[in-house]
Amino acid sequence: MTAPSSPEGGVQGWVSSVLAQEEMPALLRLLPELGQDLSEIEEHIQASLPTSYPFLGEAAAFATATGGKRLRALLMAVAFRALGSPETTTIQPLAAAIQLIHTATLVHDDVIDHAELRRGKPSVLRAFGTPAAIVAGDYLFVRAFQLAARYTPAIILRCGEACAELAQGEMMQENSRFDLTLGRERYLKIVNLKTASIVSAGLACMGMVHDEPGARVEALAQYGDAVGTAFQIQDDLLDIYGDPDETGKPLFSDFREGIPTLLSLDAYARLDGRERSEFERLFTARRKRPAELLRLKELTEVAGARALTETEAMRQVDRGVRALQELPGGPYRDLLERIARGVVSRRY
Amino acid sequence: MTAPSSPEGGVQGWVSSVLAQEEMPALLRLLPELGQDLSEIEEHIQASLPTSYPFLGEAAAFATATGGKRLRALLMAVAFRALGSPETTTIQPLAAAIQLIHTATLVHDDVIDHAELRRGKPSVLRAFGTPAAIVAGDYLFVRAFQLAARYTPAIILRCGEACAELAQGEMMQENSRFDLTLGRERYLKIVNLKTASIVSAGLACMGMVHDEPGARVEALAQYGDAVGTAFQIQDDLLDIYGDPDETGKPLFSDFREGIPTLLSLDAYARLDGRERSEFERLFTARRKRPAELLRLKELTEVAGARALTETEAMRQVDRGVRALQELPGGPYRDLLERIARGVVSRRY
Repeated sequence: MTAPSSPEGGVQGWVSSVLAQEEMPALLRLLPELGQDLSEIEEHIQASLPTSYPFLGEAAAFATATGGKRLRALLMAVAFRALGSPETTTIQPLAAAIQLIHTATLVHDDVIDHAELRRGKPSVLRAFGTPAAIVAGDYLFVRAFQLAARYTPAIILRCGEACAELAQGEMMQENSRFDLTLGRERYLKIVNLKTASIVSAGLACMGMVHDEPGARVEALAQYGDAVGTAFQIQDDLLDIYGDPDETGKPLFSDFREGIPTLLSLDAYARLDGRERSEFERLFTARRKRPAELLRLKELTEVAGARALTETEAMRQVDRGVRALQELPGGPYRDLLERIARGVVSRRY
Repeated sequence: MTAPSSPEGGVQGWVSSVLAQEEMPALLRLLPELGQDLSEIEEHIQASLPTSYPFLGEAAAFATATGGKRLRALLMAVAFRALGSPETTTIQPLAAAIQLIHTATLVHDDVIDHAELRRGKPSVLRAFGTPAAIVAGDYLFVRAFQLAARYTPAIILRCGEACAELAQGEMMQENSRFDLTLGRERYLKIVNLKTASIVSAGLACMGMVHDEPGARVEALAQYGDAVGTAFQIQDDLLDIYGDPDETGKPLFSDFREGIPTLLSLDAYARLDGRERSEFERLFTARRKRPAELLRLKELTEVAGARALTETEAMRQVDRGVRALQELPGGPYRDLLERIARGVVSRRY
């Protein structure tokens, strides 16, 4: 089994690219410490993957090695330190578990979407086939729960509830394909369940492990929910306006798969007449040619949907930053704020 | 959500059909109590399934409602009572978890095998589609782990390890398709991982919950491993010699899917000359006509593989029964022995 290749620049690279937009040497000084946290969390992940039957372990290791920003683990480490802890040893297995759950869902998502690429590399589906991808996803879930077993029942249940919500969100999204009447509220509900819930649970658990009062635990949950939501909205934006060389995935997958996002929902709501019918006809087509995908993008811009979506992402970030006021002030809290703002300015 | 329809005659029907072969009124008297245990375990299962998004909950409930013998839960309840406990309240959530894990793997297995039928009814795959079947399987796993969260880390880890082994066994089986050189030993290893391990873990945990000494915990594990293995071997036999009206599934699925079992491995090992090549050619064909499936059955009989397989099943049962000597004597221990023997005489 080979060690996972670090994504371009790794987490530190990603964080410093988020930070480098402004001068913030105080925050940059935290990076080596956090880099150490992340690499220890990575060790927990890798240590949990070997199996007596190598093929499965390889598929699982392949799934975890396709890079990724490890945003969930990073947020957990920063939050735990923001609460005053000088180390993250006690939360590393839980952070590893949350990353594994995330990875498991990506592996299964790729089976559902027949996705061949994941972060610029072949998906587990492509590299190992459907049976292996289904079983490897299950295996990653199991290892995640084993990592979580050492925590209190309250913590296990909270993470479990987020996993159940994740499954609900995936199902809702699956059943909302090609539905332009979904509406903002239900779109945000899907994002809340599918993406934000597990981020929120991971952060809430930092408060629980640190024995914080309920208000602070819920502030962390709130922050996680807001950042997770903003992250997903930015993902939706990058699917149309990103650079595939930077994101590692082809453009327009939401258009192609008929997955409604704020962009398409707002566009459909604001267009009228011929443009509206054209948008609907193109969006709901099961197969779309490249020119049609570009036309969908054009119509989205005509409708002014991009600005609306960006505003919603910012609104979420502001909500997250407000929640941080419950935490003790200091460089780690500042970093949580910067990461939240960075999530919506990121390009990958 | 509707209550699950009981399988024909339910668990009590199955157990009494196993018992009725001999006169054993003392054991039949235990059935109402165990019926009560099983129905309370069923309540834990059903209570864990509802979701805020009904479609997913329905798919999960559908998966649990396709009947089944609830053999795993039954063995756990009987074993816990055999240890001297007058009630099963404390182990019911764990028994529910083990049943849910089993159900989750069946749902994912059906996706992998494109199986349309499960116990005579449409599979979740057929009734709800691939995305729902993948997500519902994940959801069932998550609910299982939530049910297990209230137990000690040692118990959660033991069940988790069995789940990891289950995934390994599935992967090994998947990669052994059409391989007639697999050999008895590796076949038994696959069965051990894929079927027996979770039964064994469930039973071992009965000893752990009841705070039994290690030797007794391991005797329970041994019994579970043996019964689980015998159960799988009997399943293989029923796939060729069973009555589809009783088993609820079509015959010859192992031949059709190219899954080696003791029957095909022994047949291949014992045939020679033209018959051996014919067996190999037919078995390894990706598509098989009904006449070819019948010919495979015929060649298996010519080779005497049925008797060898039945002998192996009996050997496993004897191993399980021997392990029971570590437990206190009494009607529940007798019932565990009867169930083990019944597993290889069952017709569904």
